[in-house]
Amino acid sequence: MNDTQRAVLDAISGDPASGPEIAEGLGVTRAAVWKAVEGLREAGFEIDSGENGYALTDLPEYGADVVEHRVDGAFAVQHHESIQSTNARARNLARNARFGRKEASGLVVLADEQTGGRGRLDRGWVSPAGGVWMSVLIRPDLPPARAPLLTLAAAVATARAVDDAMTESDGAGTDTDTTTSVGLKWPNDVLAVDRTGSERKLAGILTEMEGETDEVTWVVVGIGVNANVDAVDLPDGATSLREFCGDVDRGRLVRSILLAFDRLRSSPERILSAWRDRSLTLGRRVRVEAGGETAVGDAVGVEPPGTLLLDTGDETIQVHAGDCEHLRPEKTDRPQKRT
Amino acid sequence: MNDTQRAVLDAISGDPASGPEIAEGLGVTRAAVWKAVEGLREAGFEIDSGENGYALTDLPEYGADVVEHRVDGAFAVQHHESIQSTNARARNLARNARFGRKEASGLVVLADEQTGGRGRLDRGWVSPAGGVWMSVLIRPDLPPARAPLLTLAAAVATARAVDDAMTESDGAGTDTDTTTSVGLKWPNDVLAVDRTGSERKLAGILTEMEGETDEVTWVVVGIGVNANVDAVDLPDGATSLREFCGDVDRGRLVRSILLAFDRLRSSPERILSAWRDRSLTLGRRVRVEAGGETAVGDAVGVEPPGTLLLDTGDETIQVHAGDCEHLRPEKTDRPQKRT
Repeated sequence: MNDTQRAVLDAISGDPASGPEIAEGLGVTRAAVWKAVEGLREAGFEIDSGENGYALTDLPEYGADVVEHRVDGAFAVQHHESIQSTNARARNLARNARFGRKEASGLVVLADEQTGGRGRLDRGWVSPAGGVWMSVLIRPDLPPARAPLLTLAAAVATARAVDDAMTESDGAGTDTDTTTSVGLKWPNDVLAVDRTGSERKLAGILTEMEGETDEVTWVVVGIGVNANVDAVDLPDGATSLREFCGDVDRGRLVRSILLAFDRLRSSPERILSAWRDRSLTLGRRVRVEAGGETAVGDAVGVEPPGTLLLDTGDETIQVHAGDCEHLRPEKTDRPQKRT
Repeated sequence: MNDTQRAVLDAISGDPASGPEIAEGLGVTRAAVWKAVEGLREAGFEIDSGENGYALTDLPEYGADVVEHRVDGAFAVQHHESIQSTNARARNLARNARFGRKEASGLVVLADEQTGGRGRLDRGWVSPAGGVWMSVLIRPDLPPARAPLLTLAAAVATARAVDDAMTESDGAGTDTDTTTSVGLKWPNDVLAVDRTGSERKLAGILTEMEGETDEVTWVVVGIGVNANVDAVDLPDGATSLREFCGDVDRGRLVRSILLAFDRLRSSPERILSAWRDRSLTLGRRVRVEAGGETAVGDAVGVEPPGTLLLDTGDETIQVHAGDCEHLRPEKTDRPQKRT
């Protein structure tokens, strides 16, 4: 979207406006306004030409233009039909000092499909077309040690946005046990909980960074949401928004995630309390694996910068990173069998 | 240095060995041995041909070959006469998965001179020819949050090596107040303390990394030692080994640093105690600046992963990163004036 298109879109987003009015307001020719409108229509924006002038009647569902428009230009956005990994693309952009500096909030890489999506620790992340696969490049004043806070912030923002999308949906999901809640599993998962108490993965976060010990040069926060995809195309233990509530407007979903993430990260003290409010891990018996070691205990707290406190019965230990498994209350001494 | 040269060097590093003996031992022709010896001589290795065969009588002072030889091939080494920044070079190598994987201990980039050397937080680091400017690329199993431990390990290793070099030197330094000790200032400086108690910077560490919150992909530990350089070419507050004890053998110095760093980083629990033993910061009144905020207090401890504990009188605070200034004991309420 070029500058004139952006300005014309702003001009007609509220009340309709005539070509001459817009041209005068922007200081461009009427022909330039007409050209911008044609370009916007080609990009999927529905614009009526009526007696009162141009009126914006509908937005494209998804893509760079509509997301940039929806976040009022706070983020620069690029969209790919298919890409290996949005995090890999964002990392490459991050290493080029030009990218992600001028935008107040960051640069966003979106893809409809990832062919080599990644989760934590080089694991794969299945990313079929229709999902929300995005990476946010930011350059915060933050030491690397505090970057786990950004993972928690992104998880909270995603859970809220997903929750809103479910609430607003028409309930056309194919899953008969409709979800009762959306919650967070430490450190980086968003889970849907159905009526039976079964937890399945809806979304996940992967935070990467480069910098010196005092300060990061960049952070890339990858957010993957199983949105408009069939659960049958996802790994065991995962589900999708389509499954629970029918297809969602991904442009709106991305907008909600980005704006909530941006608000949260500006007040780190709120991140932890917001995370605790949505946590499914706290109060649970969990099994944590990290670096070849395993600990089982009760998750009794989370403290800055995202450290899990585990009461093993003998002592309370701090877990900085690792894989966490929620154990069923009745099986306190051994891992829950995966199905 | 090619494989045959490396093998020939090993063969003659102890007792002399004849051409036929070496050829048979290595399974190569006598001509190949002769060619390797010539190549080594051209690279600065002094090799006598006597009655008992070839004997290694002297090593070049500095360069990739001699450092690789001195560390028994534990590190791959590259040397540049002049380079912008060894850390920048190591970062670029790090992003290429080929580099730093096969070496047990890491890849080392050395330079005689840096034209754009960097210290913490994008500050310059003056790096004239004759210093030890090096970067060690490693790929440890470590979350970014624990990387500050590597800064402390490198500082301890450097202080020990510098101390040894001073002890072994002929005392030909031009400074009349000869040093009495070498110590560490939190977080990343090696200081020389002279008889008057004046502290001047001899060396510094800059640790950079890339990775996800669970685990780094790579770490580059930059180590700069003001070795065989004139103090007049350095910034105020800095001094050099030349100044204190005369020029040192940089190949030996680098060997000592690398081997000590490698030993220390394999036992993180020893890093902190070794750092405390050489600390000039602990027990001192200090002023710490970080992120625009300033705190003054007594440095009462250091805890994992390198956090300074500061007793401000009201409370004990944890300082994760920042600039630290040692205050003179008699001026407890205001910063020491810089000269």
